[in-house]
Amino acid sequence: MHPLDDALALAAQPDGSRLGRTSAAYGNMVGPYGGIIAAQALQAVRLDPGLQGEPVSMTVNFCAPLAAGEFVVRARAVRTNRSTQHWLVELRQADAVCATATVFTAARRPTWAADELARPPAPAPAEVPRTRMPARVAWPERYEMRFVEGALPAAWDGTEHASSRSLLWVRDAPPRPLDHAALAALADVFYPRVWRRRARPVPAGTVSMTLYFHADAAELAAVGAGHLLAQAQGQAFRGGWFDQTAQLWSETGALLAVSHQLVYYKQ
Amino acid sequence: MHPLDDALALAAQPDGSRLGRTSAAYGNMVGPYGGIIAAQALQAVRLDPGLQGEPVSMTVNFCAPLAAGEFVVRARAVRTNRSTQHWLVELRQADAVCATATVFTAARRPTWAADELARPPAPAPAEVPRTRMPARVAWPERYEMRFVEGALPAAWDGTEHASSRSLLWVRDAPPRPLDHAALAALADVFYPRVWRRRARPVPAGTVSMTLYFHADAAELAAVGAGHLLAQAQGQAFRGGWFDQTAQLWSETGALLAVSHQLVYYKQ
Repeated sequence: MHPLDDALALAAQPDGSRLGRTSAAYGNMVGPYGGIIAAQALQAVRLDPGLQGEPVSMTVNFCAPLAAGEFVVRARAVRTNRSTQHWLVELRQADAVCATATVFTAARRPTWAADELARPPAPAPAEVPRTRMPARVAWPERYEMRFVEGALPAAWDGTEHASSRSLLWVRDAPPRPLDHAALAALADVFYPRVWRRRARPVPAGTVSMTLYFHADAAELAAVGAGHLLAQAQGQAFRGGWFDQTAQLWSETGALLAVSHQLVYYKQ
Repeated sequence: MHPLDDALALAAQPDGSRLGRTSAAYGNMVGPYGGIIAAQALQAVRLDPGLQGEPVSMTVNFCAPLAAGEFVVRARAVRTNRSTQHWLVELRQADAVCATATVFTAARRPTWAADELARPPAPAPAEVPRTRMPARVAWPERYEMRFVEGALPAAWDGTEHASSRSLLWVRDAPPRPLDHAALAALADVFYPRVWRRRARPVPAGTVSMTLYFHADAAELAAVGAGHLLAQAQGQAFRGGWFDQTAQLWSETGALLAVSHQLVYYKQ
């Protein structure tokens, strides 16, 4: 079984909640990789028998690190309209809230359409070598990352950079067909922007992540196990908090999702 | 009393919830202006006696239009850490959920800081004439808007534009000292980006809005009743949903807040 599918196995409980288990394969410094928690929160909605439509937006808030082991996730449709649903998700350990999420699901209809933000130019994935990340944590090995710009600083020498932008080709490792849960996890793949700006590995961690999905399930299935071009950049860093805006395009140039993060940093 | 403060008057109830009332001054096509609902949800947290820290991020989901009249808003701290708090907010009418929000509050500490996204060039507010919006709805009269670029299309002639960007000076009308609630309302001030792209007034409405506050209360107080430079642009429009990314700078060039929206559109 693919490690992502293993992490997304959420067992239905008699009270309507689901039982999950943290995955060592997606381990981070303290607790799991945020992207896998986002994917698990979204999966609780995707598995709900009352679900209508497909994921269109979600916000996940990381309230506390998860300890290794079991967790309970509960998804509740708080409002169901004719073709849209609003969900609240809580993820708990020992009855304490570790993460919250709101998810919006809806039907998609054929409309006038345009991708305003064009895919930045980049050499083909096969022309960009895979970057191996330091082996201190597990999750980066779950992704094939090929940095076009803004890889981890080669030296942590405190040299300040004017831009926090990174651009990379990325996909699951081993490759896996794309769906909304995998895309939610991929949206968190960027190392902290403050490291890129400062070439200093200061403590940092995501507090909240919002995703807007522009692609439906059929479009993601068509991408299959192809590479995504992923871009992230911070807009402001102040008082211990910075934001990050990110985009994920298909190889053919379709903007599949955009995401935003608020991230804690120290010093 | 300023119309914003009137809208933000939320009366404490014995059960811990608060009673509000929709404000005709902020009326929109169907129900209230989304920005005022965001401000009311945030205000429920700001008024909570258990609040620690200041607003740093929030996401508000508009689940259904509010009918004119009373509503109940309930804020609950789902996780309180040493210097951070995670909140869930529900806004109800007749016991049905009309809006949900998650709010993150925290202490801000002196750190290395940088505004990476510089304020775009613009003539001074006094040099840009105030744009009067059509009088079909009330809320635009609550804001002094001075468009530098991307005002409402002069003619709804269906001419397609490549960019959905708007740039304007904006502040409360009448002017009012800035705080986090006022800033939350201001972050929704942009008319639908799909109108800008297409010069067609198709039905559109915000479904979810996320805000990251980069300024603390002291910095907002220093802005006072000054103008903000506000920028918004869509990244993709597809299947009846588009996103918008936005920034709000002070006159002196500080990035006070960034926001993102998912917006419904028809046709």
